[in-house]
Amino acid sequence: MQIISENKCFDGIQGVYSHRSETTDCDMTFGLYLPAEANEGPVPVLWFLSGLTCTHENAMIKAGAQIWAAEHGIALVFPDTSPRGEGVADDDAYDLGQGAGFYVNATQKPWAPHFQMYDYITKDLPDLVFNEFPLDRDRQSITGHSMGGHGALTVAMNLPGQFRSVSAFAPICNPSASDWGRKQLAAYLGADEDTWANHDASKLMTVKGFNGPLLIDTGTDDPNMDLLRPETLATAIAARRQQAIVRMQPGYDHGYFFVSTYMEEHVAFHAEALYA
Amino acid sequence: MQIISENKCFDGIQGVYSHRSETTDCDMTFGLYLPAEANEGPVPVLWFLSGLTCTHENAMIKAGAQIWAAEHGIALVFPDTSPRGEGVADDDAYDLGQGAGFYVNATQKPWAPHFQMYDYITKDLPDLVFNEFPLDRDRQSITGHSMGGHGALTVAMNLPGQFRSVSAFAPICNPSASDWGRKQLAAYLGADEDTWANHDASKLMTVKGFNGPLLIDTGTDDPNMDLLRPETLATAIAARRQQAIVRMQPGYDHGYFFVSTYMEEHVAFHAEALYA
Repeated sequence: MQIISENKCFDGIQGVYSHRSETTDCDMTFGLYLPAEANEGPVPVLWFLSGLTCTHENAMIKAGAQIWAAEHGIALVFPDTSPRGEGVADDDAYDLGQGAGFYVNATQKPWAPHFQMYDYITKDLPDLVFNEFPLDRDRQSITGHSMGGHGALTVAMNLPGQFRSVSAFAPICNPSASDWGRKQLAAYLGADEDTWANHDASKLMTVKGFNGPLLIDTGTDDPNMDLLRPETLATAIAARRQQAIVRMQPGYDHGYFFVSTYMEEHVAFHAEALYA
Repeated sequence: MQIISENKCFDGIQGVYSHRSETTDCDMTFGLYLPAEANEGPVPVLWFLSGLTCTHENAMIKAGAQIWAAEHGIALVFPDTSPRGEGVADDDAYDLGQGAGFYVNATQKPWAPHFQMYDYITKDLPDLVFNEFPLDRDRQSITGHSMGGHGALTVAMNLPGQFRSVSAFAPICNPSASDWGRKQLAAYLGADEDTWANHDASKLMTVKGFNGPLLIDTGTDDPNMDLLRPETLATAIAARRQQAIVRMQPGYDHGYFFVSTYMEEHVAFHAEALYA
């Protein structure tokens, strides 16, 4: 692991690190915020998965999460959204290939060798950060934005017991039925839609649900509402009687000004579960 | 004036606008945050002047100021740091020309026709924003970062009565004696150093001072300490017996993670003056 940068921030350290990932078979970069409490022992962790086109950096500099992580003594991990670099496949479209890993393990060429973002997020990167930093593996929660909200919800439901709470900002809720999803799942996983089901939050909610608190915020003025399909997940939540807070926030759209507005409440929501 | 974007943010609106500036003779872009209170009448204004290489956008997305502006019902203005576009002179160096206007009115070629950032910040842009938005011209304060801290301090001291309070994050305090200053003041204003004096916060502090509260934060680990010369301004403040809070913040460096850490306190500091 290499240190790219470390900057003091709200009495803790905002770091950027790179490492060779065996899973994605390339160098990966991530951001990690350690609150001051990490000097005294392992702290709980909140994962933040980012959206289409993002690197590790966008949420790290735009989401305004560090202040609340510092307040609650929680670490933040900001992974990248795909493998990158020479030899890694890409596509001219913003929503496929680099910057658009969709948090799945690709089985199809040309994506299969490197695009293993599900394993990267759930195995490779956790192994690294819990080894290298004073983080408490038994106290993890997860959140994300847009494609990263999809990632947070699906990862959390696929790994029962691993995360104490899950939340999402404007998540892609039903990619199997969305142009933000069908194209990518077909490209990465192939045409057999049965292989998509474990990467669709609405379907997972029906089959598995989440054993813990769940919070979702979406702006009423989100221009991507038809792509996000929050109504499908809300329906599945109600049918399952899943513990959940699902909010439509008046006038907000899809960007980081929306995300930052509700970040305080999301971090506080996770802190309640992490310190329960 | 053209609307580039408007996004709801902490119950207010973060807008980006462009307009033709007669002073700089080119199109200029700025960010403006209006808190929800602006719906009911004019609100006080905090100007944020940015540093080298920045556009209107950096502080707008990285400084984390909107949450505190919303809390106090204060508008924020994020001007650009120089004229830009075709026909506007530039230099290969990051610290001269576009992105490095230094908040002066250039008298020297090739900078003279467009680089009139002092007049732009103090006349052109105020005329526009007070005409177009519900802002209270009688309640203004000013802050800035690095080169923008220099801008905030010098503008505030040059215009007695215009700003109720002034603050700065890691400001360039004594550009007449710094490589962040001598090169630029010589290029824009010419070799006669007498013309530089009104653009040097330490010299202005000795001659004029500021009639109101002043707050300065600089990180002890700022790698540009020799360029910022905070000791020169601190000396002038003490000699003048200027009302001031001058803080060296342990472990912080020069970037936005430092700025965002102390933003809450800076906005609260200005709010106290703006609502006095």
